Amino acid sequence: MQSSWILAIRSVRPSRRLAPTLTFRPTCLSAPASRRCFHISSPRPQDINPAIEDMAPKAPKFEIKTPKGTRDWSGADMVLREKIFNTITNVFKRHGGVTIDTPVFELKEILAGKYGEDSKLIYDLADQGGELCSLRYDLTVPFARFLAMNKDISQIKRYHIAKVYRRDQPAVKKGRMREFYQCDFDIAGLYDPMIPDAEIIRIINEVFEGLGWQGKYTIKLNSRKILDGIFQVCGVPEASIRPISSAVDKLDKMPWEDVRKEMVEEKGLAPEIADKIGKYVVLKGKRDLLEQLQKDEELAANPSMQQGFADMDLLFTYLDAFNAGHSVSFDLSLARGLDYYTGVIYEVVTEGSAPKVSAASADASAEKSKKKKGKAGEDEDRSDDPTVGIGSVAAGGRYDNLVGMFSGKTQVPCVGISFGIDRIFSIMRANQAKKERKNEVDVFVMAFGGGKDFTGLLKERSEIAARLWDANIKAEFLYKVKPKLQNQFKAAEANGVPFALILGEDELAQGKIKIKEMGLPEDHPLKEGELIDLKNLTKEVQVRIERKKQLDAIVEQAEGLRVVGGIKGEDVKVEQLAKEGEGGEEVKVEN
Amino acid sequence: MQSSWILAIRSVRPSRRLAPTLTFRPTCLSAPASRRCFHISSPRPQDINPAIEDMAPKAPKFEIKTPKGTRDWSGADMVLREKIFNTITNVFKRHGGVTIDTPVFELKEILAGKYGEDSKLIYDLADQGGELCSLRYDLTVPFARFLAMNKDISQIKRYHIAKVYRRDQPAVKKGRMREFYQCDFDIAGLYDPMIPDAEIIRIINEVFEGLGWQGKYTIKLNSRKILDGIFQVCGVPEASIRPISSAVDKLDKMPWEDVRKEMVEEKGLAPEIADKIGKYVVLKGKRDLLEQLQKDEELAANPSMQQGFADMDLLFTYLDAFNAGHSVSFDLSLARGLDYYTGVIYEVVTEGSAPKVSAASADASAEKSKKKKGKAGEDEDRSDDPTVGIGSVAAGGRYDNLVGMFSGKTQVPCVGISFGIDRIFSIMRANQAKKERKNEVDVFVMAFGGGKDFTGLLKERSEIAARLWDANIKAEFLYKVKPKLQNQFKAAEANGVPFALILGEDELAQGKIKIKEMGLPEDHPLKEGELIDLKNLTKEVQVRIERKKQLDAIVEQAEGLRVVGGIKGEDVKVEQLAKEGEGGEEVKVEN
Repeated sequence: MQSSWILAIRSVRPSRRLAPTLTFRPTCLSAPASRRCFHISSPRPQDINPAIEDMAPKAPKFEIKTPKGTRDWSGADMVLREKIFNTITNVFKRHGGVTIDTPVFELKEILAGKYGEDSKLIYDLADQGGELCSLRYDLTVPFARFLAMNKDISQIKRYHIAKVYRRDQPAVKKGRMREFYQCDFDIAGLYDPMIPDAEIIRIINEVFEGLGWQGKYTIKLNSRKILDGIFQVCGVPEASIRPISSAVDKLDKMPWEDVRKEMVEEKGLAPEIADKIGKYVVLKGKRDLLEQLQKDEELAANPSMQQGFADMDLLFTYLDAFNAGHSVSFDLSLARGLDYYTGVIYEVVTEGSAPKVSAASADASAEKSKKKKGKAGEDEDRSDDPTVGIGSVAAGGRYDNLVGMFSGKTQVPCVGISFGIDRIFSIMRANQAKKERKNEVDVFVMAFGGGKDFTGLLKERSEIAARLWDANIKAEFLYKVKPKLQNQFKAAEANGVPFALILGEDELAQGKIKIKEMGLPEDHPLKEGELIDLKNLTKEVQVRIERKKQLDAIVEQAEGLRVVGGIKGEDVKVEQLAKEGEGGEEVKVEN
Repeated sequence: MQSSWILAIRSVRPSRRLAPTLTFRPTCLSAPASRRCFHISSPRPQDINPAIEDMAPKAPKFEIKTPKGTRDWSGADMVLREKIFNTITNVFKRHGGVTIDTPVFELKEILAGKYGEDSKLIYDLADQGGELCSLRYDLTVPFARFLAMNKDISQIKRYHIAKVYRRDQPAVKKGRMREFYQCDFDIAGLYDPMIPDAEIIRIINEVFEGLGWQGKYTIKLNSRKILDGIFQVCGVPEASIRPISSAVDKLDKMPWEDVRKEMVEEKGLAPEIADKIGKYVVLKGKRDLLEQLQKDEELAANPSMQQGFADMDLLFTYLDAFNAGHSVSFDLSLARGLDYYTGVIYEVVTEGSAPKVSAASADASAEKSKKKKGKAGEDEDRSDDPTVGIGSVAAGGRYDNLVGMFSGKTQVPCVGISFGIDRIFSIMRANQAKKERKNEVDVFVMAFGGGKDFTGLLKERSEIAARLWDANIKAEFLYKVKPKLQNQFKAAEANGVPFALILGEDELAQGKIKIKEMGLPEDHPLKEGELIDLKNLTKEVQVRIERKKQLDAIVEQAEGLRVVGGIKGEDVKVEQLAKEGEGGEEVKVEN
């Protein structure tokens, strides 16, 4: 056996060594990193090991990149996105949500006729014989198809976190992608009115508060019934209600004057009707606005309005019971684009949701940028276009008739919300103070020693790592037979690993091993680490990891208080909190 | 405010009521549920509320189903699959794995020329202008593309759990799908030899032991270098090595006689060379087999063999240190199909991996079934075909040259493993004793009362639920203004919710609420529940949930011991263990 360990030391074969320096020339450094293309300079013979060169095929002729409007996720970005997913999933489960998974493509016929004009954005699969399929455009239509196929499911709270596809013009930095995640929670089934609708708003609050957005988001709320009632009372012809509704929906992007112009000039609405609408749709408020509208005799006489009033009245009552009304704005300008909503509609906005300048006012000064645009044409990313905002970060509403489009007469009423993960991500990424760790390893196992007789202790490091893994402790060590201590510390620091376990011949002979918490200040009593008994290894390590986690949580909480609003946090002394945690009774370590 | 709560009770509007009975007629009940197509009978007017009928569109003309070879996941299946994902992810993170996410489609050129004959199985996107793209076929090529694009990443342990796509003949029940999950862990970078290769085997063991498969899986292990060495020593011409290797790879599906026939008759190998190969490739063992081969002077003189020997010698040594050698079988018949492997190769098999009968021996008796097949043709699912096994449940190996196919000369050596989740799932699903719960709700909030004055306590139930959610307790209640107690219990039982919180007017007046653990035996002292103080609500609930979880874990563990092998578990008394847990000191509840 020993012979193999010696073999290990000798067997760093040159054929595994790679050329130490390789040159590449990015063609366009201004492009986002993910789209840069590398042209490999012709190999310099002195850099290349012949064995490798023989195996290496020629560099491909085409640009190595991901398709337009898509990107890879890795490193700190991936960690942050996973955290967002976990926060949201946790909320969904808290409310009894169950998850489903549907295929990434659906029969083309399933998606047909569901998205109106936007159908042109659907990705089709090539006809390679067999069925014609398209990539899903959202998670709502597949959910409706699922419910239509599973007649035994008459009630479900389902969540679904998955990618959807739209051949749209991308704005990568703002999180507008062709492949992007949606994160949907829907309550399907026939219930007493407005209870699930209110729970959805409670869920929206829990999600954004869970993400640390307290006070930084607004849940815009309206009802299709109220909106339609207003249009009817104002005298909009029945056939014009949806087009006029679409125009109203643009009030978050353009001023009323422009919307009015669209109504009158493009959609042929009588100016006096537009003006009457204008009096209503600028109104915002809470329950007070509802009460104000209820006093309007003309509105109160409209049947659609009466239904809308009853809905909203119940909704506000339930929101109080759920303690979920604080961030809600009853906003008569909210109309939502999709046709299938039938009741309450929601949209969550935050700073950056609206464009910095409206498209109309940007027109005048856009001559220069238009010329620039002309060059790259449709392919240009619109991340820096001030007329493109991040848009809403979540949106949804009640849609009682969609399932019936598949099942025929069996209607399953639904209400739901879809969180725009990529947009939420780009906002959080931009405001991120602390760099996320790339991996979750808690312990780096190292060997200490030097000189001619230093074996590198690979066998011992492997055995220690195996013991840690057996105890479900996340651990790594350097894949090197004789590693330098310095390189081992460097590897641990690069990943922010909190603890080092350092093996030395002398300590091992005494049945001991050194544990060292990384990043302690110079004057800390444990800066140089502590010797612990090898026989209690996993327990000693677990206790320290647990203690550190508790401390980190306290510090993070305190820093969170400090950041949010900058008011609440002023009295919080992070160090003091940390010390309280350190002296706590729950976790005790004998030194 | 009170007025709205009264409104709630009155406002169960008839327009929300659906037809109480709806008929449907499955066209083919023998088809799997997910593919049944429902033809809705023409509506019976007496069943349909006119308001709903107006909104409901006609039933679609096409079959409502998922595309061929794909399926929805929901309910207990989804819960089990999520558990498998969690187990595997936990292992990956324990070893310092970080995850990446790549687009579901890649530029067509990226996938071209990577999969040999199987390229015909790639799904292409339709040409809708712009780039030509294809759905990914595996996660390995996108990983290599990712490494080639991110030159700053020279070392990474990455995992990736995502769907891949193959236009193959599906066998749904055996987990052979056109859309299926792969679950990959790869260690990329230049390290001292065989350390990461050994850690991959340790990871395979941790995954299958984590899934409860102790003693029920075998990690077949071989090295391309040893295999090529054998072929060279036996006298296989250089150009025939890969085709002969492919023939050897079929030894898990057909007997040696058939493989020999293929070599000699189809691939033109001299019979005496085939016979010489036959002597080697039937060999299986552990380190003893390696030692036996090393003594063979002819083999020992071959340079590829020498490299293979050195690799395997180190590997067995490291496996000992990792305590990971017990389930390994050094198997000279393992060859793996893909061309890109350059060193060690792995394949994990279990009962059901191999087909029940070989294709050759099935030929004779297949006349009848052939006729049957002819009817459905290519569209038939092969789940019941005895010549189709589940196949390997995980496979991988070392591929040192793949990244270079994209980056030109920059090689990043890699070794990795891919777990076949859908196959693992179908095996675990078939052996599943206990039904999984569909959701994770811990508390169902109910109202008790009756008679004319019973309000249903919706406001109180909402407020209690909100308090539970605030404390991160998973809770639900019935979306009904005046629910029957019986229906509330039925809803809680349907989802296996462990606790009921029951509100009553009298108890509320005393500041109390009843908590009842569901499913207690008739004679249990707490069968009728306990009254707890409303002001300590969340704490009292949390303590009970925690205690129940600990108990369940002990019972599960004990049942696991009983199931595995049936030997270890015989002395374990589940009830006794559960009682020990119940009386434990950690969690104390004052009654």
